[in-house]
Parts: sequence; structure tokens; C-alpha cells
Amino acid sequence: LKPETSGQTLGSIAILGLGLIGGSVGLALRGRNTAGAVVGWDPSTANGRKALDRGAVDSLAGSAQEAVTRADLVLLSPPLPATIPLLEAICAALPTTATVTDVGSLKAAISTEADRILPGQFVGGHPMAGSETGGIESSRPDLFLRAPWLLTPTGQTLPEIVRKAELLAREVGARPRVCDPVEHDRIVATLSHLPHLLAYGLARTAADLVSDEWRDIAAGSFRDGTRVAASDPSLWNVVFRDNQEALLTSLDRFESWIASIRQAIGDRDDERLRDLLRSAHQAKASFAVSPTERNTTED
Amino acid sequence: LKPETSGQTLGSIAILGLGLIGGSVGLALRGRNTAGAVVGWDPSTANGRKALDRGAVDSLAGSAQEAVTRADLVLLSPPLPATIPLLEAICAALPTTATVTDVGSLKAAISTEADRILPGQFVGGHPMAGSETGGIESSRPDLFLRAPWLLTPTGQTLPEIVRKAELLAREVGARPRVCDPVEHDRIVATLSHLPHLLAYGLARTAADLVSDEWRDIAAGSFRDGTRVAASDPSLWNVVFRDNQEALLTSLDRFESWIASIRQAIGDRDDERLRDLLRSAHQAKASFAVSPTERNTTED
Repeated sequence: LKPETSGQTLGSIAILGLGLIGGSVGLALRGRNTAGAVVGWDPSTANGRKALDRGAVDSLAGSAQEAVTRADLVLLSPPLPATIPLLEAICAALPTTATVTDVGSLKAAISTEADRILPGQFVGGHPMAGSETGGIESSRPDLFLRAPWLLTPTGQTLPEIVRKAELLAREVGARPRVCDPVEHDRIVATLSHLPHLLAYGLARTAADLVSDEWRDIAAGSFRDGTRVAASDPSLWNVVFRDNQEALLTSLDRFESWIASIRQAIGDRDDERLRDLLRSAHQAKASFAVSPTERNTTED
Repeated sequence: LKPETSGQTLGSIAILGLGLIGGSVGLALRGRNTAGAVVGWDPSTANGRKALDRGAVDSLAGSAQEAVTRADLVLLSPPLPATIPLLEAICAALPTTATVTDVGSLKAAISTEADRILPGQFVGGHPMAGSETGGIESSRPDLFLRAPWLLTPTGQTLPEIVRKAELLAREVGARPRVCDPVEHDRIVATLSHLPHLLAYGLARTAADLVSDEWRDIAAGSFRDGTRVAASDPSLWNVVFRDNQEALLTSLDRFESWIASIRQAIGDRDDERLRDLLRSAHQAKASFAVSPTERNTTED
């Protein structure tokens, strides 16, 4: 990582929610010159202690309010549905100059609500990195290396708030990119939520059709195609529900492709089948990324 | 790998088709005591030369017939549709005691036809390992390490033929398992063909819905969910067509799961959504394999 030479600093940091993402941000900030003291808070005191033991935070606060009292930058990293309640809870305790950002998988609703609660000071964020195993135990300092970190300012968001959140993303090794909140939710419906949904469906289908005796012969295509079905189902439940419209649009498109290939297979229509697969193969190539340029972790 | 102590040997080996699988078998057999000379043949002389240069074979034959004249074990490893024509071509040149086996992704039709062409001496095989990038250039000696290698004898197959093919699988580091040919095709429809089909569909859907500008933000779930869409579409075309019945059955089951979750998302039915995802998550766990026990390669 290049040293930050702009003179901008992160200042004092509060991380609220010490799971995979919050913990990894804390670990990634260790020793960064621009970062001041990192105070952590988590509703689970056990999680808090683990984060302190791992060195993800410099100290623990007794409450979310206490954590943010002198913070220049507040990272909200609880489970998605706790984000807005947490913002409401800390609002009165926040310095008027603090930047507040979050890490939730959806941005449209959160951005609208945050603008109402804390006009100008909040910018939504979404690091495109993660793991199918969550929790502070899985946190690591290199989780965000070279990963995109989407920021979703609204018309209300102050420019210096966006700049500070961009600096945070860069300081943990990620690549900040600004995106409209509604467009964000549409894009991740296809690039993240649909893959998760298909992985769950493939796992369930295979368990229905393949007896115990043969489950251990599955090779790489099945393993990779179902990997994220190991993700916590109670997190994805919320994401699927709250991104209903965009996800159903993606699913429509996917199902219409499936209907085409089903027809071609049923008709043993070689030419059509070849065309469909060739076109899909080209589509895959259009997403090609160099393995040296990208993290191998999960969103 | 434990040394083979049963006294059985592979004898002289002919590998017909020097791509990823044939080449990797040759490389894996190097230095194994039970393996005699390995003669290779490929319709492409360039492939043959590459295989010789890599040390995957000890020598090259000028024709498939010439390669098998003195072979104790013949491995048919051409693209799937070339398997039976190749068996027909070598049949008259084969020693009457030779074992012939193949590596095709489908086993029912091949086993029936092979029984007609070469009664008793043929046993179908399917190593559950591979890569989305094929060709002799991708071959490697550890491709089959700890991978299942399915063998599909019929009522006609002689027991010593099966034993010899099992020895081949073990000698390259794989785990031989006997499976009925028709059941094999049903199992791989779900564990291999369906994941490939979904990967192609996800890649095509995403290219339709996500503009160029945002394609590089896709994280692990998309990358893994589409990895095998990089596979050669003209190979999968044949597999999907020829395994029509079993694949459509798997697809039926998958689509009925998709219909259920679509309904739950559309209804914002939290309870139903949670139940579906929890059940899928448990299904994934029933396929759990230890990363140290399994190869990370592709079928």
C-alpha cells in the first residue's frame, strides 16, 4: 500500500459491530499512520473481548453511545437489519463533524433512512469482500485487499464525508467506487444475491436427488457452485426479502435462459444448445479478472 | 501413496487422446513401479509432441492401432463423442487379454456399446477431477489425488478387468469406486451437469443485466458460481444433450425449488424464506468434505 500523502487523516475511529467485517477493518487499520485510536463496541461482550485479544480494536466502550462520543469516523458493521436502529441510537451522542458509514449489503433503504436521521454526515458503504464463515474469528487484515468498496452518497451527503469514507476504504487496502444507492442494489441483486440463491437451490436439489452413499463424489463444479450455501441463512433471508424487486428481476432473466436451454436439451437441438453455451461462455469471459489483481474472498 | 503390494501390475500402457486427462494420467504414472512403458497417441501430432516433451508418455505411436498392439491396459481419453469410434478402430488390433477403460463424463450408452464391440474386456471409468481449462498444457501429475474415480462394470465385464482399472485409479492417486452405469449418469446429472448449466446461465444473465462499468466489482460468490462457465462449451453441449433425461429431471427439481423461493420472496414471507434457506444450508452441510481430504480441482 502506498503511504497516504494527501494529509487527510481518519482520526479517532469507532467500530460498532465486531464481526467478520468490523474486525477485519480494525485489523487492517493497525499501524496505519492516518488512523487514530480505534474504539470498538459489540452487543456481545464475548465478541468484544475476542476483538480486543486479536488486536482488532485498541479499547472497548461500554455502549455504542460511549464509543462514538469523540469519534471522527464511525463504522456501523452490525448485521444488516441492526444498521438503522444503531444509527438512531448513537445519533444524539455523535460529534457534529463525524463521518458515519456502514457495510450493509443493501444501500437504497439505508441511505434514505440515514439521510432522515443524520442529514449529510452519513454515506453508505459496501465492501465487496467477505467469507461464507462469518464472525470475529474469521476476521483478517487482508480481507479487503484490492476488493471494490462501493460508496453510495445521496444528494444530501457532504463531499468531505465521502472523501473520508474513501480514505477508510483505501487505508484497509480496498478500492473505493461511488455508486448510486438504487443502482447498487440492482447490481448486487445479479452479482451477489442471485449467485447465493442459486447456490442454496443447487445444494437443496442435490440433497434431494443424491443418496448419502454418493454425496462424497461431488467435484469442483458442485463444490464451487454451492460454496456460499454455507453462509448464514438468517442473513440472506433478510437480503433476499429486502431486495425483492431487483432480485426477482434478475431471477426472471435467469429463468428465461433456463427455459431456453431446457427447450434446446428437450429438442436435442444441437445448434441452439451450442449457441446458448457459446454465448454464456463469452459472457463469462467478459467478467474475467486477473487472479493477481483480485482478492479471492467472498462478498 | 502407499506402494502397491498385491503383486498386480498395470503392464504396458497405451493412452489414446493426450489432453488434460490422458496427459495427467501419464504424468501421474511416471516412476510408478507397477506401470510399464507408456505409449501415447493423439490425432493431433502437436499434442502428441507436447505430451512427449512433458514426459506424459515414453513414446508416441503412429496410429491408435499401433499404440495398442502390445498393450496390457488401454486408456481411451479422447473427447466424449470420439470414445466409441476409437474403440471400434482399435478393436481388431487389441490383445485378447488387454483391459480397456475410458474417462468419459457419461457411462450408460458407452458401456452398452462397448459391451457389444468388446465383450468383457471394457470397463467404463470417470475420474471426478478436471479443470475448466483443458488440453495437454493443463495436465499435471497431481490432478487425481484423492479424487473419486468411478468405474461402471456391466454384467458382462470380467472381474480381472475391473481389478486392473481399479489399480490404474489407485496408481494415479485416485479412489476407485464401482457404480452402475445408469446410476452414474443420474448422479453426475445433479452433481456435475446441473452445476455447469447453472454457471453458464448465471454468467449469461449477469452479462445481460450488468453494464461493462460494473462487471469488475463481482466478488467471490459470482466468481465461484460462474467458474465452470469458462469450460469449453462444445464439450458440454454434447454432455447436456446425451444426458437429456437425467439432466431434465435434476433441472425439474431445481426449478421447483426456485419457484418456492420466488413465491416466498414475492410474498415477503419471512418464515417460509427462512425455512427454505435453512433447509438448503443443511443440505450443503451434508456434502461437507474436509479441504485436506479432497482435491480442489474440477470434474
